[in-house]
Amino acid sequence: MFPTRLTEGYRAFLDDRFPREKNRFETLAEKGQSPEVMVIGCCDSRVSPEVIFDASPGELFVVRNVANLVPPFETGGEFHGTSAALEFAVQALRVKHIVVLGHARCGGIRAFADETAPLSPGDFIGRWMSMIAPAGERVGPRGDMELSEYVTRLEFAAIEHSLRNLMTFPCVRILVERGKLQLHGAYFGVANGVLLVRDPETGEFKPAVETMPERVSMFSAREVEG
Amino acid sequence: MFPTRLTEGYRAFLDDRFPREKNRFETLAEKGQSPEVMVIGCCDSRVSPEVIFDASPGELFVVRNVANLVPPFETGGEFHGTSAALEFAVQALRVKHIVVLGHARCGGIRAFADETAPLSPGDFIGRWMSMIAPAGERVGPRGDMELSEYVTRLEFAAIEHSLRNLMTFPCVRILVERGKLQLHGAYFGVANGVLLVRDPETGEFKPAVETMPERVSMFSAREVEG
Amino acid sequence: MFPTRLTEGYRAFLDDRFPREKNRFETLAEKGQSPEVMVIGCCDSRVSPEVIFDASPGELFVVRNVANLVPPFETGGEFHGTSAALEFAVQALRVKHIVVLGHARCGGIRAFADETAPLSPGDFIGRWMSMIAPAGERVGPRGDMELSEYVTRLEFAAIEHSLRNLMTFPCVRILVERGKLQLHGAYFGVANGVLLVRDPETGEFKPAVETMPERVSMFSAREVEG
Amino acid sequence: MFPTRLTEGYRAFLDDRFPREKNRFETLAEKGQSPEVMVIGCCDSRVSPEVIFDASPGELFVVRNVANLVPPFETGGEFHGTSAALEFAVQALRVKHIVVLGHARCGGIRAFADETAPLSPGDFIGRWMSMIAPAGERVGPRGDMELSEYVTRLEFAAIEHSLRNLMTFPCVRILVERGKLQLHGAYFGVANGVLLVRDPETGEFKPAVETMPERVSMFSAREVEG
Repeated sequence: MFPTRLTEGYRAFLDDRFPREKNRFETLAEKGQSPEVMVIGCCDSRVSPEVIFDASPGELFVVRNVANLVPPFETGGEFHGTSAALEFAVQALRVKHIVVLGHARCGGIRAFADETAPLSPGDFIGRWMSMIAPAGERVGPRGDMELSEYVTRLEFAAIEHSLRNLMTFPCVRILVERGKLQLHGAYFGVANGVLLVRDPETGEFKPAVETMPERVSMFSAREVEG
Repeated sequence: MFPTRLTEGYRAFLDDRFPREKNRFETLAEKGQSPEVMVIGCCDSRVSPEVIFDASPGELFVVRNVANLVPPFETGGEFHGTSAALEFAVQALRVKHIVVLGHARCGGIRAFADETAPLSPGDFIGRWMSMIAPAGERVGPRGDMELSEYVTRLEFAAIEHSLRNLMTFPCVRILVERGKLQLHGAYFGVANGVLLVRDPETGEFKPAVETMPERVSMFSAREVEG
Repeated sequence: MFPTRLTEGYRAFLDDRFPREKNRFETLAEKGQSPEVMVIGCCDSRVSPEVIFDASPGELFVVRNVANLVPPFETGGEFHGTSAALEFAVQALRVKHIVVLGHARCGGIRAFADETAPLSPGDFIGRWMSMIAPAGERVGPRGDMELSEYVTRLEFAAIEHSLRNLMTFPCVRILVERGKLQLHGAYFGVANGVLLVRDPETGEFKPAVETMPERVSMFSAREVEG
Repeated sequence: MFPTRLTEGYRAFLDDRFPREKNRFETLAEKGQSPEVMVIGCCDSRVSPEVIFDASPGELFVVRNVANLVPPFETGGEFHGTSAALEFAVQALRVKHIVVLGHARCGGIRAFADETAPLSPGDFIGRWMSMIAPAGERVGPRGDMELSEYVTRLEFAAIEHSLRNLMTFPCVRILVERGKLQLHGAYFGVANGVLLVRDPETGEFKPAVETMPERVSMFSAREVEG
């Protein structure tokens, strides 16, 4: 049976949010979507982009994969889900911003750090996460660092790495160079709700909201990269 | 600069939703996520699973790709984003439900129906959408059908096809056969807010909420498949 | 020697316009161009888009070829000047409008109508203008029509034809369908300065400025097409 | 809707320039155009020949393509836009001068220098710009040169190359040899408004106006070519 929790949730949506946004949905259906922002986020159930950014229907074009990764541009192979979404967002929807939204306590990154044995014979997670090996090299060996500290460093370095991979896509690079498209890095602290945003000049992650209590330590991507 | 709309949205989240769910976030950070439901949804900005199901943090593990597709199980190749997320949800998080959430007016499906020439030299969208070719064969040729009608039929057939592809993953099939995992199909009407849920017995899609005004025509996947 | 007229004209530009727009040029050099409008115009010396639209530097991305033609999309062959410009404007500059700007007394169209013998062994004009043969078929045979009247009909039909050819480019069609790009037809009357703009609903060409004295006859593309 | 900016610009033209040049337009319409100069310029929105040369209607016959290129004479293939315009200007209008007008910060040249991956499946820009490969060979490898410096050298070498290609057209070569037609190279500095003109004896580019402040470094095409 369809999960009761979902049916109830949908009923709540129908009673509360849908009536308020009915016209918006109708217009969006008629005219098509034209979001200005693409978010590349994680599948993690605690990190919904629409919730964190209090977004309305039509605002965010959202890809979600494990650990919010962007593979490098490469034209071989078969099915490239993230690249396909990227191509669609940039070429057909002409989004103006791409946000790589990382987050604390990412299970995918932890699997990489922990060198977990394959979960299944396909080892899809292992192969998927191997994409961040260059980020791992920049962070350096774990040594006697706490695992949680090491994972956090990898989380930031992985955002950097995805931003670099984005630039390997010709259509992205050209538009960025022409000032038509902006790339952003952000990081959500699940425990404290703090959102850090990457300063494109320095690579540092700083609180998105200035009056934010300083509950998080600040990370510099340059420091992370050694 | 980080998009103002996102900073403002985040501020709204901090002011309104976060204080109400602060404890929930803290607990989820401490104990880790344990969602019971995985949703495979579309990147479309009008179809946020958390919005449609009014979900709280921690409830839905969400993959979003163009046209909410699941590729068939295959162990070759390099990066399999959707398969990696599936493996993680099923093996590591042990979700109990997987919902393939399709929707009306899907740009990816339309691109397939329209035989659009490549958007980019990578032709990522074309190759990604080629995955539903078997669904296209079941629907049959468009003939003199209206494009919108043809696209709708493909949208339903693609959900069926993804449900079948899910069953090609050994870990999914085994758990489904043992009654540990359920697969569901659902379809969201962007214009009218109607959610249709697939009846696993008949393959028919019916309104999730019974008192729903009958504003949508009902589709039977079996009928669609001829 | 470099033509005196050009040196003098450049001196006038340096004395008058450049000082007024110095900052604009500096900024445009630093930040790059980002025009919102692409104009496909004729080489004709009487029809400068910047003059007719009183445009500033940075506003119009301008292709000019004989008879303001757009070839159909086709990926074979070698050098495609107009298609290259189109690709650059749409993909790299993300223009929002493309204007096909036709004009009265077009020498290229007249060469087509007049079945002029080749001007040179390459017969470049003849082959270039053969592109409007489908427009010629829609207009029908000249019969005992005045040549000037026949040329005028061809001029309007050629604009229609270029607008259709524009839609054969995948990137154009997709963006038009998504409301991200608009295509326009316009026609400049060299003798009287009247600018006609094509009504996208009816295909009729109407004065761009309403208080325009009705010095020109109105043309309907539908009528032209029979 | 037709872009408001264009309608307003046209209104300004009607109010200001058109009344002043009304007679000129009428005469040009009646007697036909007879420009003495053909300009081969770039589509770039910052480089309008009529603006830089403060030209009146009827003075300049203008081809504009990406990077102001002239392909070599070759009689195969289908649509040759630039060659058709050249043929028309030389044979039918009998212009006395052809100016290849290059400019700084050319996006097309940069795309060539940068070995950009294709923007679209047609790769029109890539194929179009491949025309300057011989100029690239003369400039030699970039080595550790700054990209902007390398692009500038290519910009000058590409003008040289187009001047050579012009001479491959029999009708151009014959008329040049008989002193009936002159070919010129010029280069516009977008940032500082400086116009350089090529000295046909030495191949050096020198300021068009002698009192020009020496704000630009001088380039010698011969030096560029080694």
